[in-house]
Amino acid sequence: MKTLKQAGEASATGNTRNEGDERPIGVFDSGIGGLTVAAALRQLLPEERIYYIGDTARVPYGGKSAQTIERYGFEISQMLLKQGAKMIVVACNTASALAVPALQRVLEAPVIGVISPGAAAAVAATRNGRVGVIGTRATVGSKAYEQAIHALNPGIHVVAQACPLLVPLIEEGWLEDALTTQVIERYLAPILSQDIDTLVLGCTHYPLLHKALEQQVGPNVVLVDSARNCAAEVMEILRGHGLSAPDGTKGGLQVTLTDPSVGFLGVAEAALGLKVGEVEIRPVP
Amino acid sequence: MKTLKQAGEASATGNTRNEGDERPIGVFDSGIGGLTVAAALRQLLPEERIYYIGDTARVPYGGKSAQTIERYGFEISQMLLKQGAKMIVVACNTASALAVPALQRVLEAPVIGVISPGAAAAVAATRNGRVGVIGTRATVGSKAYEQAIHALNPGIHVVAQACPLLVPLIEEGWLEDALTTQVIERYLAPILSQDIDTLVLGCTHYPLLHKALEQQVGPNVVLVDSARNCAAEVMEILRGHGLSAPDGTKGGLQVTLTDPSVGFLGVAEAALGLKVGEVEIRPVP
Repeated sequence: MKTLKQAGEASATGNTRNEGDERPIGVFDSGIGGLTVAAALRQLLPEERIYYIGDTARVPYGGKSAQTIERYGFEISQMLLKQGAKMIVVACNTASALAVPALQRVLEAPVIGVISPGAAAAVAATRNGRVGVIGTRATVGSKAYEQAIHALNPGIHVVAQACPLLVPLIEEGWLEDALTTQVIERYLAPILSQDIDTLVLGCTHYPLLHKALEQQVGPNVVLVDSARNCAAEVMEILRGHGLSAPDGTKGGLQVTLTDPSVGFLGVAEAALGLKVGEVEIRPVP
Repeated sequence: MKTLKQAGEASATGNTRNEGDERPIGVFDSGIGGLTVAAALRQLLPEERIYYIGDTARVPYGGKSAQTIERYGFEISQMLLKQGAKMIVVACNTASALAVPALQRVLEAPVIGVISPGAAAAVAATRNGRVGVIGTRATVGSKAYEQAIHALNPGIHVVAQACPLLVPLIEEGWLEDALTTQVIERYLAPILSQDIDTLVLGCTHYPLLHKALEQQVGPNVVLVDSARNCAAEVMEILRGHGLSAPDGTKGGLQVTLTDPSVGFLGVAEAALGLKVGEVEIRPVP
């Protein structure tokens, strides 16, 4: 049997631990849309403990400025590190676009966002080299997906569209609804007209609209989301840094919110088939 | 009908100034919807300086918990008092519903929200004693309008409906739009079926949808918003406390935001005919 205690006592980062590292993976989102990433992590890495923070006291990030989103990213990352997180997964496209570069520069723990996994998935999926991206105003304004896709393949044509109403529609629970369909239709029309064959769901909420989006784009456009690719990259990072949980560990998910209003949590749990259990409330210091 | 404190109660502020008080009126909202109240104040009290803070770094308040909204209310009020505000106007229905009682207990400066002016306007407007209220989830959940209306007339039947999509639709600029009309139709159906003759627009954003709402409710339902009534109560409080600006003072409006994303500011300025001028950015400490 492996010496779990030693692993637990080992100091922050960089160390290679053959005996496994039982500290949790820290995951955060502006709200609870990031549970789509937590669900993918639970599925791929059932032995890992996940400590998730949803910044529901300041949700949404999507219409806010780069400087505010970067500050929020640092504050929530600090909360995760205080909980002993061995790495930080930014399960929010807006925070990934605007805070991950600074977090990677400053924090010692490995940090990964959802933009590069989503970009990699899009590059792999497109056949005609024309990719659409939908997301919040802040994500689309940042051009983070364009940059990440062009870093992999500068020849790909990228068209992006901000869809600020989709998150409120999802949080209202109107997932399969004629009204939501009309909103989607209006947002997608300008990018569908550009002959894309791949559409990146550039917001962790959007997989909950997968069915409605799929109907809208038709059978010739592939929908790509970051959750599964992000989980795969997390697995690689954990292995590369010797941070994987010891074999046979019982993983789990702890959800913490900065504000106790959890109206949307039921919608997310049902749609994701994710058991969230007891939620802790911990205001931002 | 008015339940304003009389001049005798002015001890709270310490000093009665016959010579006039040049300090600004402090006004705040979760975002810039409260500019509807600032516009009404500018119109009624052109000699007063208004110092407005929109808490755009944490907007919206409407889906958040009472404890978080109360904390935000205190933090923003402190910022206004540091700017020398002679009174606080909470130009946000959610913060009025959930933070004003505590602010009134704790702060020395007079504090007024938009709920009681809106309730007074509804009580004055209804002929059949049946009033509808629309607002955010937090405002409707607080039952603040029911309580304020029943304090004036316990016999009035009040039906309330949370409309969480209206603010995002307004901020998207879809003010006169077939989609917005359908959303309004869906939200209003259950309360219109209860034979109301008065509808309180219980969110400072909603006056920007006045036309669409008016078309939906038809000619027999009176739309009531707090802005003008609130401005009238502010005038009475200033006079009662000897806090009015000296005659001949040149008033004005200073807008400060806690986050610099001002996408919606243009929509609001145009719809209100309000000249906002230079906006200062001041993060919450």
